[in-house]
Amino acid sequence: MLNNLPTEQLEAIETALREIYTADAPAVDETAGFGIMLRYPMGWVEADGSPYHHPTGKRIRPLMVLFCAEAAGGDWHDALPAAAAVEILHNFSLIHDDIEDNSPIRHGRPTVWQVWGIANAINVGDATFTLSFQALHHLRDRNLPLSTVLGALHALGDTALTLTRGQHLDMKFEHEQTVTVEQYLQMIQGKTAALVSLSAYLGALIGCGDVERAAIFGEFALAIGLAFQIHDDILGIWGDPAVTGKSAASDILSRKKSLPVLYGLERSADLRARYTQTETFSEADITAVVTELEAVGALTYARQLEQDWNARALDALQRAEPVSPGTEKLRGLVDALFERQA
Amino acid sequence: MLNNLPTEQLEAIETALREIYTADAPAVDETAGFGIMLRYPMGWVEADGSPYHHPTGKRIRPLMVLFCAEAAGGDWHDALPAAAAVEILHNFSLIHDDIEDNSPIRHGRPTVWQVWGIANAINVGDATFTLSFQALHHLRDRNLPLSTVLGALHALGDTALTLTRGQHLDMKFEHEQTVTVEQYLQMIQGKTAALVSLSAYLGALIGCGDVERAAIFGEFALAIGLAFQIHDDILGIWGDPAVTGKSAASDILSRKKSLPVLYGLERSADLRARYTQTETFSEADITAVVTELEAVGALTYARQLEQDWNARALDALQRAEPVSPGTEKLRGLVDALFERQA
Repeated sequence: MLNNLPTEQLEAIETALREIYTADAPAVDETAGFGIMLRYPMGWVEADGSPYHHPTGKRIRPLMVLFCAEAAGGDWHDALPAAAAVEILHNFSLIHDDIEDNSPIRHGRPTVWQVWGIANAINVGDATFTLSFQALHHLRDRNLPLSTVLGALHALGDTALTLTRGQHLDMKFEHEQTVTVEQYLQMIQGKTAALVSLSAYLGALIGCGDVERAAIFGEFALAIGLAFQIHDDILGIWGDPAVTGKSAASDILSRKKSLPVLYGLERSADLRARYTQTETFSEADITAVVTELEAVGALTYARQLEQDWNARALDALQRAEPVSPGTEKLRGLVDALFERQA
Repeated sequence: MLNNLPTEQLEAIETALREIYTADAPAVDETAGFGIMLRYPMGWVEADGSPYHHPTGKRIRPLMVLFCAEAAGGDWHDALPAAAAVEILHNFSLIHDDIEDNSPIRHGRPTVWQVWGIANAINVGDATFTLSFQALHHLRDRNLPLSTVLGALHALGDTALTLTRGQHLDMKFEHEQTVTVEQYLQMIQGKTAALVSLSAYLGALIGCGDVERAAIFGEFALAIGLAFQIHDDILGIWGDPAVTGKSAASDILSRKKSLPVLYGLERSADLRARYTQTETFSEADITAVVTELEAVGALTYARQLEQDWNARALDALQRAEPVSPGTEKLRGLVDALFERQA
């Protein structure tokens, strides 16, 4: 993912994650079945309990924690419990979102609810959620001020609330005819962006102990998260299939109400009419929709918004006064994030 | 519920609960729909958002927190955030358990998933769960040592993990032919008893700041919780319908694998045969089952076990060296708990 894979950090994250599951879920482990259910979505075991080695996801959030800790002038090792916490929180949200969104596959494997049913998946998600809080208590082994540990726990809870709100809006919008661009941006702030922002905040807080400076790192990452989501929305329509691995204009075919589409729907009666037709879009429909989106300026608007958020991110990063070599690693992580699907 | 209703404490608990929802879920409130969903299971609003005033449950757990704080020598007001936290945690577990157990009614009203669907109910449960953690941060306004606040947060997480394990076992046992008395006791420790134990632990910890003494209060309440569950199991078979409000031997008709039944199944081939028959139990079947349970000593065993746990509770309470007037209030609460369905 990164030009120079941060192998040392990735391995340390993996170790920290496993240690938390071993230390905090021992009672859970006694009942082998439950221990397996908990470790399956982390990519450590197969559904039958046999070993599996495929870390789920790219560990972008925990790396964000560690690099921000370093960029804020701290030792990234101190931030490992927080790196583990955000990764576990992320996994929790996927376990429950997959039930809520009826998604059968995640990281190429059946989702938890597909394997063990909805009731067990809810319960596994709850345990995973709890482990993300418990992970932060390991910060106490790092000789940090207790107020920092408490601040980290409060921020984790705050973000968890934001995530439930984002998920609420997401589900609500699916059943609504009209969603404004404004509402959409509010919703995505409560999804991807909130968790990326928490990662940066926690890392910086642990790195420097200064709540206000940490908040600026959080601002930086929130902007990055939003820019990234908009970037992704653009690629869903105008991305090169050879690079994205999806069919051309895949988000048009699925009628996803992404940012450019919402912008277009606000401005074009033709688009509104097309989006109410019940038949599946033909190739010709898709081309017509894309052309109309471009005609009303949706692509230009989305690109501008992405650029604006990127500019805000850079501005915040400057104000955060990051130090080397954390800064460079952080920039590398951001570049990698955007290049991934460029 | 209690001979002398602790009106002052009950009102203070109610106020603390509402303050937490106002303080910690403001972003959530902007989206009115989500705010209503969150407040509905607390008994504050109807599903359409109109006011409703019917506190769900008897607030036994939060009263346990306050009385233990007092019995440990502290000021019960300091423990209000913890009282709110355990009540919110309890409500969270009901929201998710009701989905998992397919329960349509709770406290005389449709359950959250019945009103808004499973996806929303999962999400509402997650937000409620988070609020129970956030509630504890309000302990910081009470001038308590930060290590006490952190200890409370860790204990809450620990209990949440225990609850998911108890729920896992409960669901697992439903699909198993043979469950031992041993396994059953392990399971109920992870349900009712764990939360009652946490309540006492948190109250005492806040009241005296001594982790070890608080653990003894926790031991006391765990034993009370177990004794109560066994008491309830006895009433489900031998309770007076006029008092319990249920039909006679209701747990036999529903074939609930409660403690006396499991004890009987381990000892009687006749009972095992009856419990594999597919037809609904007739009146004669029920009488035969109850007679057989008594013949193998299931009632005597269950009563003895209840008595044992009550004795252990009293022993722990003595070792905890509680002070007046908290002690008396605590005893009153326990008496009320057992008399409730006596």
